[in-house]
Amino acid sequence: MDIMQIGNKILNEQPFSRLLGTRLAALQPGFAQLELEIKSEFLQQHGYVHGGVISYLADNALTFAGGSLFGDALTVEFKINYQRPAQGQRLIAKAKAEASGKKVVCCTCEIYCLNDEKEFLCASAQGTVLGKV
Amino acid sequence: MDIMQIGNKILNEQPFSRLLGTRLAALQPGFAQLELEIKSEFLQQHGYVHGGVISYLADNALTFAGGSLFGDALTVEFKINYQRPAQGQRLIAKAKAEASGKKVVCCTCEIYCLNDEKEFLCASAQGTVLGKV
Amino acid sequence: MDIMQIGNKILNEQPFSRLLGTRLAALQPGFAQLELEIKSEFLQQHGYVHGGVISYLADNALTFAGGSLFGDALTVEFKINYQRPAQGQRLIAKAKAEASGKKVVCCTCEIYCLNDEKEFLCASAQGTVLGKV
Amino acid sequence: MDIMQIGNKILNEQPFSRLLGTRLAALQPGFAQLELEIKSEFLQQHGYVHGGVISYLADNALTFAGGSLFGDALTVEFKINYQRPAQGQRLIAKAKAEASGKKVVCCTCEIYCLNDEKEFLCASAQGTVLGKV
Repeated sequence: MDIMQIGNKILNEQPFSRLLGTRLAALQPGFAQLELEIKSEFLQQHGYVHGGVISYLADNALTFAGGSLFGDALTVEFKINYQRPAQGQRLIAKAKAEASGKKVVCCTCEIYCLNDEKEFLCASAQGTVLGKV
Repeated sequence: MDIMQIGNKILNEQPFSRLLGTRLAALQPGFAQLELEIKSEFLQQHGYVHGGVISYLADNALTFAGGSLFGDALTVEFKINYQRPAQGQRLIAKAKAEASGKKVVCCTCEIYCLNDEKEFLCASAQGTVLGKV
Repeated sequence: MDIMQIGNKILNEQPFSRLLGTRLAALQPGFAQLELEIKSEFLQQHGYVHGGVISYLADNALTFAGGSLFGDALTVEFKINYQRPAQGQRLIAKAKAEASGKKVVCCTCEIYCLNDEKEFLCASAQGTVLGKV
Repeated sequence: MDIMQIGNKILNEQPFSRLLGTRLAALQPGFAQLELEIKSEFLQQHGYVHGGVISYLADNALTFAGGSLFGDALTVEFKINYQRPAQGQRLIAKAKAEASGKKVVCCTCEIYCLNDEKEFLCASAQGTVLGKV
């Protein structure tokens, strides 16, 4: 299996990702892109995407970016800043690994929202992924 | 309406919280407790609760704890450490406001997992809530 | 050597901690307390203690709390919220280890400021310490 | 005064930055670069730059990047990942503002270490700056 097939297999084995409908758009060593069509069930009380949906997508993208380097990997922690309310058709999370050690890698993730063919940054995340060696 | 009624009204207006089934167990000035029954759709590929479910619950509990002080409030950012894999019947997030300024409050949240009548800490979060004044 | 002697030895081998004058007030498995007398050189442009002094003390206290469990340890990352401006005689950082794994522990730290015999919370931190196994 | 003069004035009014010897290398709306020559007093017990020095520089660079947009500004919180041990001649912190709201901006900062004419990434930070309006 190539890396995209492995990534898709893992994503498909996550019931929560199937529930939400997450799609793996890209996976390379040190980079992952996850996408999610925004459904009305994903919103909060003001009609924007719930922060929890965005943080889920960031968490998962960080794990895939780190996992692309380590094989089986574990997100130890992450931090997310919500920058703009997300409203539109699609969430796009692009995560990349920064300088990597043998056991630990810091990954950053930008989460964009696609609204009427315009993409804008809605959140930024940074986290720590640990290789399960 | 008392504070619990207001909190329940807001939670009920969040389609994503309805999708997952979140329950408001307590809300007082500076404190919020949210609970979520663990369903098989919430898991990841190893059979544990997906980190994104835990981060969603932490995010929401932080917002309710901060919002209990400010009225309408916005979680600007948060950080979460996953401490132990979550497996069991229920997630319980207890968030409290630390020293509060006029516009900004730092809130912390501990997320417990109830498994066969034992509660254990599965994650710790800390975030910043901004009053919408 | 007992744990306090080991801790004092390490602290004394840190030139930066000697420059600032940090003191180890307590060290037990899973807990560390560091203290620092506030000097005029530690301030920022408004007369409060510079955030960088507070973040240094938090970083060091987190490392000592985690190191008390693992022996040689490394702080991978941390997050700090500044809650109130620090002004007074002394900074007191109390760090404790939360649920610990074999290789990784999440530690939290509260930083207090002593001003005219009153202690108040000025910052809260949370970080990840990795055992150097 | 132009923006560099204002920045230098503020930096020069910070006793802690004078103690360490921080230099403002660049300041533009949404971007700040701070630099610090590494002295032997800045090290920890293994001969690397103390994390507290790096976190101080990140904190200050984040504040300058955010302050360049808001005028008087306050760093509410930040998170830092240490990526590689810092050893060499100089620390260079480059901070930029991400998508900015009216009152709050998320800033990110990369901290490089210059060692024998080579620059390498030693830490990444992300924080929240609040305009003092």
